[in-house]
Amino acid sequence: MSAEAKLKELGLTLTQAPSPVAQYVPAKQVGNLIYVSGQVPFRNGKLEYMGKVGAERTPEEGKKAAELCALNALAVVKSLIGSLDKVEEIVQVRGFVNCTPEFTNHPEVINGASDLFVNVFGEKGRHVRAALGAPSLPRGATTEVEIIVRVK
Amino acid sequence: MSAEAKLKELGLTLTQAPSPVAQYVPAKQVGNLIYVSGQVPFRNGKLEYMGKVGAERTPEEGKKAAELCALNALAVVKSLIGSLDKVEEIVQVRGFVNCTPEFTNHPEVINGASDLFVNVFGEKGRHVRAALGAPSLPRGATTEVEIIVRVK
Amino acid sequence: MSAEAKLKELGLTLTQAPSPVAQYVPAKQVGNLIYVSGQVPFRNGKLEYMGKVGAERTPEEGKKAAELCALNALAVVKSLIGSLDKVEEIVQVRGFVNCTPEFTNHPEVINGASDLFVNVFGEKGRHVRAALGAPSLPRGATTEVEIIVRVK
Repeated sequence: MSAEAKLKELGLTLTQAPSPVAQYVPAKQVGNLIYVSGQVPFRNGKLEYMGKVGAERTPEEGKKAAELCALNALAVVKSLIGSLDKVEEIVQVRGFVNCTPEFTNHPEVINGASDLFVNVFGEKGRHVRAALGAPSLPRGATTEVEIIVRVK
Repeated sequence: MSAEAKLKELGLTLTQAPSPVAQYVPAKQVGNLIYVSGQVPFRNGKLEYMGKVGAERTPEEGKKAAELCALNALAVVKSLIGSLDKVEEIVQVRGFVNCTPEFTNHPEVINGASDLFVNVFGEKGRHVRAALGAPSLPRGATTEVEIIVRVK
Repeated sequence: MSAEAKLKELGLTLTQAPSPVAQYVPAKQVGNLIYVSGQVPFRNGKLEYMGKVGAERTPEEGKKAAELCALNALAVVKSLIGSLDKVEEIVQVRGFVNCTPEFTNHPEVINGASDLFVNVFGEKGRHVRAALGAPSLPRGATTEVEIIVRVK
């Protein structure tokens, strides 16, 4: 099944690709790699998850935030190349969790992004990953996710 | 106008490219991409901006720190390839802000780097970006900026 | 001397390449670059260094943790391509130190990884680097290290 069809089957809707508010661009292609800017959990122009995991946010909410970051990253890729069916593989995912110094379950939070990529792209969605903590993120976002994608 | 001429017009001087004090190198070229080591706000061998944004440092000072990191990254690129006029585009900028857990204006701080690249390179200076918080940075630096550049 | 022989001479043993516990993979090759997932200081399935540098851990322990992360990254590369002698160069190292907000000696900690790469690969082991602080890391790990390697 194609990635676009799978996305539909999963009932997932790509939100409007968030526009950077500064001198940068959402994505850039170099050769067959697309580098995507760090995505925060915006939905329709509003930040849906703010606050720190371990304080205002549960790990489960963090996981949903990471999933939304991943969806936004896909929206950005789609707006650059027209269709997610042109994606050959998700190469790399780097996920930052806005959390307290005591938090240790970053992998479970960033699974929200990783699971989405595998659900949509199957084996091609499996990627190299780093999950990390951050003391704070832009606008107070709960998570931030960067990806590199290989296209045809 | 060429990047070198633009730099001169803006009255910006590349400081001496900082030398790593360990077993690493300032930059490496692989194919047509140059990876640059994380730069902190050194000027002539002295760290110009130390301390956390939200505590000892204002966001405006953080922005100037990020600009200086960006200048140092360009100095490193120039010392590797001889002239900034060989730069085809700034591909990616990753900026870390040494800040308090309450800080949320990372994008404005990292704009110090982003604006510099666009001022010097115009449209080719627009890049993919991630802005993130860090609880601490090497030597107490206020910001750290990593870039990837594409060359001819 | 080959990297494999050097590793033996140094008395270093690659631990079993850690298996990701989620939907991601330890490493991926794109063209002649291998991207390696963020490695934490596991040895034989057990996290050997937990806790923050500046609190529960000394910088010297952090350095050993970073070395172990680097060894794990090499184990991952070897399990992907069969032999470290196929490594052309270590391109990039990004090291995160789980530390207190007051800590400033990140470079010395991440030298644990950098020194290992140079000891094993000589001049080809010298890399671009970023050393950063993190307020927390997965499972409470003391360090996390990501690398990019170029192969033949």
